[in-house]
Amino acid sequence: VTVPTLTVERRRAGRSTILFPSAPAVRAAASVAGPLEGQGPLRGRFDQVVPDRLMGQDSWEKAERLMLERAVRLAAERGGVRLEDVDLLLAGDLLNQIITSSFAARDLDVPFLGLYSACATLTAGLALAAALVDGGHARRAAVAVASHHDSAERQYRFPTEFGNQRPPTATWTATGAAAVLVSAGGEAGEDGDGAPNPGGGGRTVRIRSATVGRVVDMGVKDPYDMGSAMAPAAADTIRRHLEDTGRRPDDYDLIITGDLGRVGRPLCQALLEEEGYRVAVDDCGLRLYDPKRQDVHAGGSGAACSGLVFAADVLPALREGRLRRVLLVSTGALHSTTTYQQGESIPGVAHAVCLEAAADGEG
Amino acid sequence: VTVPTLTVERRRAGRSTILFPSAPAVRAAASVAGPLEGQGPLRGRFDQVVPDRLMGQDSWEKAERLMLERAVRLAAERGGVRLEDVDLLLAGDLLNQIITSSFAARDLDVPFLGLYSACATLTAGLALAAALVDGGHARRAAVAVASHHDSAERQYRFPTEFGNQRPPTATWTATGAAAVLVSAGGEAGEDGDGAPNPGGGGRTVRIRSATVGRVVDMGVKDPYDMGSAMAPAAADTIRRHLEDTGRRPDDYDLIITGDLGRVGRPLCQALLEEEGYRVAVDDCGLRLYDPKRQDVHAGGSGAACSGLVFAADVLPALREGRLRRVLLVSTGALHSTTTYQQGESIPGVAHAVCLEAAADGEG
Repeated sequence: VTVPTLTVERRRAGRSTILFPSAPAVRAAASVAGPLEGQGPLRGRFDQVVPDRLMGQDSWEKAERLMLERAVRLAAERGGVRLEDVDLLLAGDLLNQIITSSFAARDLDVPFLGLYSACATLTAGLALAAALVDGGHARRAAVAVASHHDSAERQYRFPTEFGNQRPPTATWTATGAAAVLVSAGGEAGEDGDGAPNPGGGGRTVRIRSATVGRVVDMGVKDPYDMGSAMAPAAADTIRRHLEDTGRRPDDYDLIITGDLGRVGRPLCQALLEEEGYRVAVDDCGLRLYDPKRQDVHAGGSGAACSGLVFAADVLPALREGRLRRVLLVSTGALHSTTTYQQGESIPGVAHAVCLEAAADGEG
Repeated sequence: VTVPTLTVERRRAGRSTILFPSAPAVRAAASVAGPLEGQGPLRGRFDQVVPDRLMGQDSWEKAERLMLERAVRLAAERGGVRLEDVDLLLAGDLLNQIITSSFAARDLDVPFLGLYSACATLTAGLALAAALVDGGHARRAAVAVASHHDSAERQYRFPTEFGNQRPPTATWTATGAAAVLVSAGGEAGEDGDGAPNPGGGGRTVRIRSATVGRVVDMGVKDPYDMGSAMAPAAADTIRRHLEDTGRRPDDYDLIITGDLGRVGRPLCQALLEEEGYRVAVDDCGLRLYDPKRQDVHAGGSGAACSGLVFAADVLPALREGRLRRVLLVSTGALHSTTTYQQGESIPGVAHAVCLEAAADGEG
């Protein structure tokens, strides 16, 4: 009964990096941004900006759910695919029991696996989606993330209405949702979906590899300084990705973390330099808001942060040929109010995916 | 640049079932049971029974984490594999932000992807682990789940010390953890690990297919009757699995749900009968405790419930040849205290994996 297995060597590099030889394509992505996010530097580039944070719902939690659901519907639409033809939804968010994703999945009616990597959920989902598509276990998989400033604030910190002061190391949980549709890469192959990105055109963007993060904890205990808590995990994952693939930082046009912010980004760079890697790390949390006009302290954060910046900024740059190879490294803090109250430190995790735009003429 | 993709037809059946042609093996499993669970019908069959619910820790949460960590270490040990050679840990639990899994992953130091399917997390993890091994993206993947009666009770319901009355439809959250090590199925192939189950011997148990569940919500709002809330999802997944694979219930020696209990199990059977399927459904929640001696009301539940019963009861029966083909259908309720307080109903989900024991002489 034994069916020969695939040679694993083609699909793994080094200790912890997964390769995708069939190069699954980012067929489409969609972003639904909150009002503040819609007024930031990426204004005009989101698929939708919601006019208010409640969206006509009677709770922030219900608004968050609606944003995630809309993002998935939009991504399917932009990818020219009916929801019935999406084999799997991989989604997660920050709320207890990931209710945003679970309740949206109920209404979307797509087979659903819930993920929790805090704000690193986007790249956890992209890694799994690419593996399932590369392995032939899914034809099309949707990845979705969401966060909402007000629902997160009252769950993790204080009643939102209380309006407590926040130290300058604190980041601002982004309000919004993003979805990415991953499908088989071959345009002409029997499993292909035709040219990806049927709406927008441009170059085909493929997922080439992923490095799944270890949980790293350097003992930071301050929930108002999550950038410092997550920076060691980001540095660990970036270093392991470079070691596993035998590449140098220069081989990437952009290495961008999820939400390290103004405090965590230089710390991540310093940790990498200690290991002998000079890396200019960019950060999604520093692209989402304008620090001069928008008072978000150390930058943006939240599961939606890297999702919004990926869908509205990084992916278009790959499609348009302004970037050729990107390492997207979403970052997550894995604590809860319970672990904080029990005196625990804040463990971090970071998952990386390598995205490449096809060269001109390669489709 | 296009690398030919695998023919997807070999790896999908019907609308929502994934096939694993290489038949990844359950290399080892381990169970760590709480004191009550250790006195139930499966006593003597767990790898470890902890003497008290705190395990010398200063909180139930820390004890829960320790159980999950122990289960993973034991499964690796029983599988003859060092933790450094486990490519990936897929784990989840019931606590907010799955802190049990995340903090255990920190100490285990294995690349980690967090899952949340409530009490259906075991089969969500087994489906993903089997896909990653079948696709060649992981050589060995560990799946782990945990729950703890006291940490769950105080998070979801009332302070545990309050000792509030519970209606007879309520289930009892199991205390314990289980881990399953999945590896390439080929004994002789270049990716194989040699004979699975090096400790215990017996037949090789392989994961043949998985059906990922949709989120189903029939409007049940009573958090003290989760069996009724989850039964429709279990029936939906079992029906779709049978349709996708073209099989009849008789083709399985055992179809066993996770934690429907005394109330949900007959409801699941009735729903299947309405669709034309006469299925004798068994339930892990009814195997874990003795209703005559142990007052657990409608049965056991919790993420550990199907994990403990699988590792201590179902897997040994497959290894020993008493069962040949099993459909394991862990079931989850995807609500939170927030959704309950906002008047929402309780959505359910169920993921199924088909496990087969090799015939005599097949290894």
